[in-house]
Amino acid sequence: ARPRVGYYYTGKTGSQLFQERLLKMKVKDFQSIPVVIPENSSVYDAICSMFLEDVGTLFVVNENGKLIGIVSRKDLLRASMGKQDLEALPIGIIMTRMPNVTTCTAEDSMLEIANKLISKQIDGLPVVKKDDNGEYDVIGRITKTNITKAFVYIGAEE
Amino acid sequence: ARPRVGYYYTGKTGSQLFQERLLKMKVKDFQSIPVVIPENSSVYDAICSMFLEDVGTLFVVNENGKLIGIVSRKDLLRASMGKQDLEALPIGIIMTRMPNVTTCTAEDSMLEIANKLISKQIDGLPVVKKDDNGEYDVIGRITKTNITKAFVYIGAEE
Repeated sequence: ARPRVGYYYTGKTGSQLFQERLLKMKVKDFQSIPVVIPENSSVYDAICSMFLEDVGTLFVVNENGKLIGIVSRKDLLRASMGKQDLEALPIGIIMTRMPNVTTCTAEDSMLEIANKLISKQIDGLPVVKKDDNGEYDVIGRITKTNITKAFVYIGAEE
Repeated sequence: ARPRVGYYYTGKTGSQLFQERLLKMKVKDFQSIPVVIPENSSVYDAICSMFLEDVGTLFVVNENGKLIGIVSRKDLLRASMGKQDLEALPIGIIMTRMPNVTTCTAEDSMLEIANKLISKQIDGLPVVKKDDNGEYDVIGRITKTNITKAFVYIGAEE
């Protein structure tokens, strides 16, 4: 007979159960709103958007709103150190361009994303949805801040 | 008699046990090497150090090596947008100065730090040790990158 002491033996350890719960934490549960700029923006425009929106990563979209690139605070700081006129410098020159942008989907687990951010040494990723033409709509943003919030969340669970 | 089915009933749920393990993850187990600059550095020097060392947060120390301030990539980007000569602008003008710097110790739990980073909306903290004069030596650096690594670590545990 199964012992009845207020728990249930499933053959799984506590950490296995926990890991399953970790894998159930999805990007869609933690993502932030993406901040996008048009491809004809200048580096100066981009820096203004970054401060106005208080984000560390901007996504660059074409005239149809499809993802074409990504730019980080580090990219902008590097550009601002140059001798160029930032209002005349197009964002396209300094952004990381598709297909070199690492992306994720709303259904990815936060654990996968944390792994990607560490292994690729990047601060954030666009959450994308592929359209019928194989182009990407940007539907969210995931950064180390969201991972930190997920970490707080698991610690707060009782 | 206690049931013997390959586990041990402690009166704690799997998530309680897990939370205890979370709280055992200490700053000292995940911290990075701190990058410090002297207080007579210019903003230009600071930006160079940030790129050379590839960090997002620098700690400013006085002539005795004690913590007097902190500067982030965001602070430097803001400064670089101004009209000032970055080589003539002292770091002391733009840094966050003690006692307004949030610090932590090597024995703090990663969970506490994650909470601090989120609630104070900061990217990183110095790990400090108080000396006999009540001043701080900087012995480490904790950022959202370290939290992300801690998140990966708990996901990798079996």
